[in-house]
Amino acid sequence: MDETPGSVSLFLRLGQAIFSSAALLLMSVGVEFFSYTAFCFLVTIMGLVIPWSCTLAMFNIYSAIFPRSLRHPGLIVIVAIGDMVLSILSLAAASASAGVVDLLLHLDGTHCPPKFCGRYQLSTTMAFFAWFLTAASSLLNLRLVASG
Amino acid sequence: MDETPGSVSLFLRLGQAIFSSAALLLMSVGVEFFSYTAFCFLVTIMGLVIPWSCTLAMFNIYSAIFPRSLRHPGLIVIVAIGDMVLSILSLAAASASAGVVDLLLHLDGTHCPPKFCGRYQLSTTMAFFAWFLTAASSLLNLRLVASG
Repeated sequence: MDETPGSVSLFLRLGQAIFSSAALLLMSVGVEFFSYTAFCFLVTIMGLVIPWSCTLAMFNIYSAIFPRSLRHPGLIVIVAIGDMVLSILSLAAASASAGVVDLLLHLDGTHCPPKFCGRYQLSTTMAFFAWFLTAASSLLNLRLVASG
Repeated sequence: MDETPGSVSLFLRLGQAIFSSAALLLMSVGVEFFSYTAFCFLVTIMGLVIPWSCTLAMFNIYSAIFPRSLRHPGLIVIVAIGDMVLSILSLAAASASAGVVDLLLHLDGTHCPPKFCGRYQLSTTMAFFAWFLTAASSLLNLRLVASG
């Protein structure tokens, strides 16, 4: 769909899907994330990033197989705006979670047993990776919109 | 310096300076911000945004008085990159503070006396306004870089 080198775009999408899935699973399975607003926000946003990235990865594969089938300028604008919104939201979610994890580590141990805290930290790190890749996609698509 | 309508750019810069100063003062004067990493980060970033915005506001006024004196393409690229980095950092700082404030409100009252919590909330809100204006400046400058 977008005209960046297809493999770069596809790798970015796959990376986003992998990192956001990891963040979602680490945060939501077997951990009490629902006690903290920031963690709920992180889970929600990662739940939005996963279908977005998977859909666009499939579009990328499709347009690699059938070149020039999906090149519509309006689509690129929509994808660029969506990427930018999702990258802002995922940065906000990852930062909020990082702030909360740091505070929980500095409070007494009752709020954050070591097993849970490690999961929270790992999930937040994965969310930052997902943000970085989403921001890269967003900049690539913005460049396309500007040049096209 | 930048070629957006000068008054829009100047208003954005003044707004950034005002909101980031408000966030910095509300967070740092008479409140124990140094106990929390997220609040220290917020104070640091707001302390970076203030001189940046004030300097660029002065450049804007200077280039309104002496037109065509400071139009160098390299300068616009540096300003666009600086704006983007500062907008990412201020969003991260504001989100981390918001997460921490929310957590403090839900913990018992010992961590956050009502007087302090109100200040934290207000400061975080101001930081979000400062982020919004910095992001707007950043997009305007990116458009200039793309079109120039």
